[in-house]
Amino acid sequence: MKYKTCVSIAEKTPLKVGQTAKIALRRSDYIEVRFDFLKINDIPKTLELVKKDLGRIVCTLRPKSEGGQFLGSEKERIALIKLIAKYDPYLLDVEFNAIKKNVALAKFLESTKTRLLISWHDFKKTPNAAELKKRMVDMSRFSNFVKIVGTAKSTDDSTRMLELYGRCEGKNNLISFAMGDFGRISRILCLYLGSPYTYASLGKAVAPGQFSVDEVKRIINLKKIKN
Amino acid sequence: MKYKTCVSIAEKTPLKVGQTAKIALRRSDYIEVRFDFLKINDIPKTLELVKKDLGRIVCTLRPKSEGGQFLGSEKERIALIKLIAKYDPYLLDVEFNAIKKNVALAKFLESTKTRLLISWHDFKKTPNAAELKKRMVDMSRFSNFVKIVGTAKSTDDSTRMLELYGRCEGKNNLISFAMGDFGRISRILCLYLGSPYTYASLGKAVAPGQFSVDEVKRIINLKKIKN
Repeated sequence: MKYKTCVSIAEKTPLKVGQTAKIALRRSDYIEVRFDFLKINDIPKTLELVKKDLGRIVCTLRPKSEGGQFLGSEKERIALIKLIAKYDPYLLDVEFNAIKKNVALAKFLESTKTRLLISWHDFKKTPNAAELKKRMVDMSRFSNFVKIVGTAKSTDDSTRMLELYGRCEGKNNLISFAMGDFGRISRILCLYLGSPYTYASLGKAVAPGQFSVDEVKRIINLKKIKN
Repeated sequence: MKYKTCVSIAEKTPLKVGQTAKIALRRSDYIEVRFDFLKINDIPKTLELVKKDLGRIVCTLRPKSEGGQFLGSEKERIALIKLIAKYDPYLLDVEFNAIKKNVALAKFLESTKTRLLISWHDFKKTPNAAELKKRMVDMSRFSNFVKIVGTAKSTDDSTRMLELYGRCEGKNNLISFAMGDFGRISRILCLYLGSPYTYASLGKAVAPGQFSVDEVKRIINLKKIKN
């Protein structure tokens, strides 16, 4: 089995997204384009610019309330999410908190058949095991691609995020790991447990505890002793 | 395959070693008794005390020059190493720096058939790949159990220690990982690459970056997604 990477790209202009995407796609299986780092008016243009590579792109438009940079209204954000859906990317990241309270959006996205990645992040802590399990089950109503991320303040926090893999039922593409220094190990172990990919940076880390893609590739290419 | 742990015990009295060993052996496959934390005169008594469990004990008598606490002369240390050898423990840890310059010791230990763990530590840095490979080959002249440990200041340092597993030739029981925060991940990944065990603490860490045995067990018991 090949372990896969997804390089997060958080650039501020369409040109820079285009240039960085080109470099990152040579070194990573997937890339995530953080559309929330762009000016709103630049988003449609950027989509056109990366159009031919969208089959390998995770599209994310993270609002401020979820740790993102998107400055517009939720209405504008939903309109842009719908626009991205028309391009049918590898994955369209939609926050659980957004989709669970917007039945119209959920219905619309279902009608487009776009593959959704339902995401949820805790930037302060790692919830307990029961909460995590419940959240995972609730999230998987919207897609079989679920991303659930906590912030680890201990090794056990990080391990608790990883225990979700063993608690999945049915067909699931779970991406579960922990941010922060104590979570670093989970960004690698998640691959061994079945995560479709792990997020990495091209150069400096976009999220706390993130490895660079080169660091990850060197680790996943480690060879066992031959005995 | 079962991944195994070795709990390091660094206690100052025979009684405490005995008590802690009993607890640790319930939770870990192996334990390491750091005889250098004891008074010299207490060492023979302590050996007698743990005698029946020696089949699961790594015996270590680390000198000051190698990060240990042994206060006696090298002559006294060698005499005690020879004494430990007579007890035929699971492994007798002997520093590469000590054995390579003491032909008489090497010959004596070979004659006893005691299983040696030839160890080498760098407490400041991680040597380059060529140096590590050369050292591993030199060390394996004395035993097929080799422990080679660096100190990681980056993820790549930690990964370089792990790359040694893929570079082993012939029958080897290699224990290679990195100390320090950046090396934490190597203390787990070494198991997946073929290390016979990983060192852990019972409570607080004995070495920099060490996990507790409970943390390690929770990680090695993680279950994959069932898809």
